[in-house]
Amino acid sequence: MSWLPIIDLAGTFAFALSGATVAVRRELDLFGVLVLSFAAATAGGITRDVLIGAIPPAALVDSRYLIVATLAGVLTFYGSSLVERLENPVQLFDAAGLSLFAVAGTAKALAFDLNPTTAVLLGVLSAIGGGIARDVLVAEVPAVLRAEFYASAAMAGAAVVVIGDGLSIARTPVMIVGALVCFVLRFMAIRYRWRLPTARRQKQDRAT
Amino acid sequence: MSWLPIIDLAGTFAFALSGATVAVRRELDLFGVLVLSFAAATAGGITRDVLIGAIPPAALVDSRYLIVATLAGVLTFYGSSLVERLENPVQLFDAAGLSLFAVAGTAKALAFDLNPTTAVLLGVLSAIGGGIARDVLVAEVPAVLRAEFYASAAMAGAAVVVIGDGLSIARTPVMIVGALVCFVLRFMAIRYRWRLPTARRQKQDRAT
Amino acid sequence: MSWLPIIDLAGTFAFALSGATVAVRRELDLFGVLVLSFAAATAGGITRDVLIGAIPPAALVDSRYLIVATLAGVLTFYGSSLVERLENPVQLFDAAGLSLFAVAGTAKALAFDLNPTTAVLLGVLSAIGGGIARDVLVAEVPAVLRAEFYASAAMAGAAVVVIGDGLSIARTPVMIVGALVCFVLRFMAIRYRWRLPTARRQKQDRAT
Repeated sequence: MSWLPIIDLAGTFAFALSGATVAVRRELDLFGVLVLSFAAATAGGITRDVLIGAIPPAALVDSRYLIVATLAGVLTFYGSSLVERLENPVQLFDAAGLSLFAVAGTAKALAFDLNPTTAVLLGVLSAIGGGIARDVLVAEVPAVLRAEFYASAAMAGAAVVVIGDGLSIARTPVMIVGALVCFVLRFMAIRYRWRLPTARRQKQDRAT
Repeated sequence: MSWLPIIDLAGTFAFALSGATVAVRRELDLFGVLVLSFAAATAGGITRDVLIGAIPPAALVDSRYLIVATLAGVLTFYGSSLVERLENPVQLFDAAGLSLFAVAGTAKALAFDLNPTTAVLLGVLSAIGGGIARDVLVAEVPAVLRAEFYASAAMAGAAVVVIGDGLSIARTPVMIVGALVCFVLRFMAIRYRWRLPTARRQKQDRAT
Repeated sequence: MSWLPIIDLAGTFAFALSGATVAVRRELDLFGVLVLSFAAATAGGITRDVLIGAIPPAALVDSRYLIVATLAGVLTFYGSSLVERLENPVQLFDAAGLSLFAVAGTAKALAFDLNPTTAVLLGVLSAIGGGIARDVLVAEVPAVLRAEFYASAAMAGAAVVVIGDGLSIARTPVMIVGALVCFVLRFMAIRYRWRLPTARRQKQDRAT
């Protein structure tokens, strides 16, 4: 699948933009911006690789990840107004990155002979780990944990891959379907402001 | 020891309750609550397994951990008033979890041929890692670092296991004694509000 | 190089002092102070070792790290006024630790056959990881990300090692030069208050 690395790097680029944008808002210096770009783009995959024993992690060894993340960081740093104008495309890139990282992470876990549940866990972790690292590094509660239908979309995409694997369907179409499921769910969540319930909101509903 | 997995899962359940309770208080959504349940219940063991090379970590491969943590999360989310009424039993479960994770973590490190000091370090890390991950994920200073005789109790339990190992005493009774030492210390600390000194409190004492 | 372990432990000591000082300021209890000492002194090296597969990490197995970090923690806890008087020497120790950890981390990565870019990344991570862990544990944005010419100095030292390796120059003089480059840059940054630009400052400059 010759187009896969391209989308993978597009996802890396999108996640790096999100990291750099957060860093610029928190007034980190240039190096801090680059660190957050790289962390947001690669922490999920690095953690997955450590947990399955794929050492050293691909994101550290394949320097295209560093190059793409650095590019996104520098672009955001010197052109933050441009990036803010791009917000909508960024959200789409981000949804694409989420989708691809979720299915690719799940597939990698299956390739390491992990069971289906673990593979889904690791797929979701690959997809959301970068956002968690980004927010922990600026001492904020990870956005992934409190808002919108984000990790749930990743889980749906990962589940498609695992189910397809269980039914022995060829990997490529399954990954495409899984990524599409994740992408469409995430797109709808942004478009229609889907949210998961919180315990408080739930109580208010009951009180009404 | 057929009762050990039961207590192990009881500890997992108790730590998951603590994670879910923190998540509900911080108004995370349902997924965030489940993530914090799982993180609080397993981060200590996962970190230990990564550090000793037990890859992939047991908590990711054995799906009972996920099931028990999810159960605790859902229970807390939909019945947070019930869980708050249960506070005392939760503290006892938590003390049991701390005790078991401390001795089990130490024993696992010894089984991987690590030296006694390292084994104690890893036992304590297994026992307190979950609480640290839980608090870092909601951008708070880990409770473990600032209050009560908590990690010290874990260290005492871990030390018993290491000393018993050095004296070549059979593992089972040593682990039971280690867990009891930790549990009793922790119970007394809750009951009588034991605390370790802080540098400030110490200065105030001197000033008095 | 019989002097290397001595400087390595001096660096560990300096980083542990910085961790303990932060912990005392945040009023952590004695155990919290010791955890922060150990985390600040070893998190960088432990993360590097996990990422390259050097398991279990040296800082957990060689108990001198624990002893030196504990010593620094106890000293800071019971004599925090003394340590504050020592601030200048501490900054010099810290710069020495940064320099040594940067070149030693890079050299270790090269010894594990990683490519030059990865080796520089891991050298920088070894040098700054402890400071990041220290600040994340007290829920602060890592100082390394927002201030002063710190990580950049580590990167310069790491680059010297990688370039020297590419030119097949003997390791010892290359590491000495790399450490000196890092140390001098860091010393000048403290002395003359060098900083990297932030996006905001940059805009203000343009506005002027």
